[in-house]
Amino acid sequence: MPPSAVRIGLLGCGVVGTGLLKLVREREREIRDVVGAPVRLSRIAVRDPAKRRDVDLTGIQVTTDPLAVANAEDVDLLVELMGGEQAREPVLAALRRGIPVVTANKHLLSLHGDELEHAAAEAGTTLRYEASAGGGIPVLQSLDHGLRTERFQLLVAILNGTTNYILSTMERDGRDFAEALDAARRLGFVEADPSLDLTGADTAQKLTILARRAFRVAVPHGSIPTEGIVGMELEDLRQADRFGYTVKLLGVGLRTPEGLDLRVHPAFIPKRYLLASVRDEFNGIYLRGEAIGSMLLYGKGAGALPTAQAVLGDVLVSAREAIQGRGAPRVLPPPEPERRLPLDDVRTKYYLRLIVEDRPGVLALVAACLGGARVSVAQMHQAEGIRGEATITMLTHEARDRDVRDAVNGIAALPSIRKAPRAVRIFEI
Amino acid sequence: MPPSAVRIGLLGCGVVGTGLLKLVREREREIRDVVGAPVRLSRIAVRDPAKRRDVDLTGIQVTTDPLAVANAEDVDLLVELMGGEQAREPVLAALRRGIPVVTANKHLLSLHGDELEHAAAEAGTTLRYEASAGGGIPVLQSLDHGLRTERFQLLVAILNGTTNYILSTMERDGRDFAEALDAARRLGFVEADPSLDLTGADTAQKLTILARRAFRVAVPHGSIPTEGIVGMELEDLRQADRFGYTVKLLGVGLRTPEGLDLRVHPAFIPKRYLLASVRDEFNGIYLRGEAIGSMLLYGKGAGALPTAQAVLGDVLVSAREAIQGRGAPRVLPPPEPERRLPLDDVRTKYYLRLIVEDRPGVLALVAACLGGARVSVAQMHQAEGIRGEATITMLTHEARDRDVRDAVNGIAALPSIRKAPRAVRIFEI
Repeated sequence: MPPSAVRIGLLGCGVVGTGLLKLVREREREIRDVVGAPVRLSRIAVRDPAKRRDVDLTGIQVTTDPLAVANAEDVDLLVELMGGEQAREPVLAALRRGIPVVTANKHLLSLHGDELEHAAAEAGTTLRYEASAGGGIPVLQSLDHGLRTERFQLLVAILNGTTNYILSTMERDGRDFAEALDAARRLGFVEADPSLDLTGADTAQKLTILARRAFRVAVPHGSIPTEGIVGMELEDLRQADRFGYTVKLLGVGLRTPEGLDLRVHPAFIPKRYLLASVRDEFNGIYLRGEAIGSMLLYGKGAGALPTAQAVLGDVLVSAREAIQGRGAPRVLPPPEPERRLPLDDVRTKYYLRLIVEDRPGVLALVAACLGGARVSVAQMHQAEGIRGEATITMLTHEARDRDVRDAVNGIAALPSIRKAPRAVRIFEI
Repeated sequence: MPPSAVRIGLLGCGVVGTGLLKLVREREREIRDVVGAPVRLSRIAVRDPAKRRDVDLTGIQVTTDPLAVANAEDVDLLVELMGGEQAREPVLAALRRGIPVVTANKHLLSLHGDELEHAAAEAGTTLRYEASAGGGIPVLQSLDHGLRTERFQLLVAILNGTTNYILSTMERDGRDFAEALDAARRLGFVEADPSLDLTGADTAQKLTILARRAFRVAVPHGSIPTEGIVGMELEDLRQADRFGYTVKLLGVGLRTPEGLDLRVHPAFIPKRYLLASVRDEFNGIYLRGEAIGSMLLYGKGAGALPTAQAVLGDVLVSAREAIQGRGAPRVLPPPEPERRLPLDDVRTKYYLRLIVEDRPGVLALVAACLGGARVSVAQMHQAEGIRGEATITMLTHEARDRDVRDAVNGIAALPSIRKAPRAVRIFEI
């Protein structure tokens, strides 16, 4: 029998959880109208129940055991905000007993998304995770509803607010990487351990989630070639500007005749692209589909309230289904991964910057490395530097990614090279 | 008992209807997976059954009577693409017998939206109309799902592709209004009668639909002050560029302490705004909410396939509900319109351009008109013209809209004014 109220079990009560509790209280009336019954928190699992929280937990049973919450009889809907892979067990437990789950856990989903979706389908319940990719941007529900039967050719997205803030600050204020990282840290945009953001791993997790839904394919964990923005220099951004580009950390999904091309890396993109105007901590998701043509969704990809609002949106739909006593049928991604285009075979243009000894013959050696790898140059500038150095900046024509990397490795090994070459892909489509 | 297949009755078979038929056939398998049953067209009402169509209608009963389709026993879902107010009767008939309706008819919705929503709710069925505002952009479903309980402070949108194409072409190619209109016509972006687009009426209809859903208020037909782009001159766009702005036809919804401010007019917007990068035939909808902060949805606002895809999205959800034997509960807008801020009382900056006789004392007369209406000037440029004329361009400080219009009327009546003054609002928030 459908419940007369929807009782939520919440795992984790950090900033997003606290934001959710506030929204659920503040918007009690609207929520009841939409769901058709009251929605209230019945149980919370936290690591440290003694910790002071900026929210009133009166009337809510607080425990340290997530599994106990997932299995509690007075929980009709599980909201998982504890994060990390340790959430797998309680989420699976809830799904297996037919309880809908809402989660924002990108790590869990990119590792175990297929398993969890199957568990939900088998038990006739639902798993929703709008907040896990693109934060407050309603992208997954759009892919699931209005665009459910659309055939997408391309997905290009800025999915990490921290790195986008760093790149925007470098570009706008002429600061170097370390200064921009500090500025981001002062604004609270940087995690205690920023490596997930800076190495591109966070973007890869979110791309995994989005690509599964947009392209309806399984994307095995760790199967996306990933490069972050560590090592990006202010000079690269200045050069990008000079050539008419701006630098963004992109998650790319592109259907090609040779397979699905999925990758994460910083890229020069033309300034006229709408994605070039996605600045600071914002995220942007560009999609191109057979019927709809071009579409862009833009908004806050992180932050307590935007994320909590996305969680709440999923809670509303799941709670309404619980009250109506049915789960929406879900279509599972194909169990086998689709043929993929290896990064080696991706054809792309490149930006290269080399610091070389300023003496005759060096350019010929560089040119030989490029020519030997079948990479041809579209534009080149050479500038005199200090201490007998010269800087060579160039844009290549489209070439096989592996060939460019081979050429760069060859150049790096030349005795006249003063510093590791800088190489950034150009995304233009 | 839920039907074992969902049989669609279609009213109208123009470009969008034809596009829908194609999508329904092409994506038959995906649609069946999502809905949980086959979806097929059973009846179509068209004006001229003899007309040659670019689609196979075998197996579909074709009639000229929309009402007969709406009432047919073998129709489980009505899709209304005939357009115009004459669709009211068949749509009401279908809703009243409990049949879900999907429509793209902005004219009908802006006139009778409240009545139709009430009829749907009373009969326990649904009315969906994603395609009616913003075409292929999934904005209404986002407002209805993830953002259902969000509290929006601001909605600013470019909702008319034709006028946006004209303004973009004038700006980019330096063409005048008439040339740009011709270019748009050659691309098929202009209706046989372009007045709905050019006068802003089309934007006002779409704003009516969006504002009802974003702000959850009734918006009586014709209650939105509306100004179009007729009379916009290339020189205004050049001046906008010089001052750091670009010109867009905007639909604005803004919550203020004095009431909801709804209006449609061309406006100078800062080039740094993401909306300034929404060019050509594209639409963009910017929303600002308490929890989510800033969000922008961008895509094609018109065109056969983007619109058909939006209709199909609504069809999928409605068909799935029909198969599951239930309608989603809908929350109705409040029956009484909310307090509104009259345009007269809106505070805004203005751009003014005057062509005056180039002789002493004229500027003093202009200044007196402005000062008398309590409008103060922020920036002013005067340029010598030909034939003893001078052009005065200025940006005002924020002033009451009515006061600026009074001042402009006063200036227009001065004997030294050679041409009707140009006045465009500046939207900066």
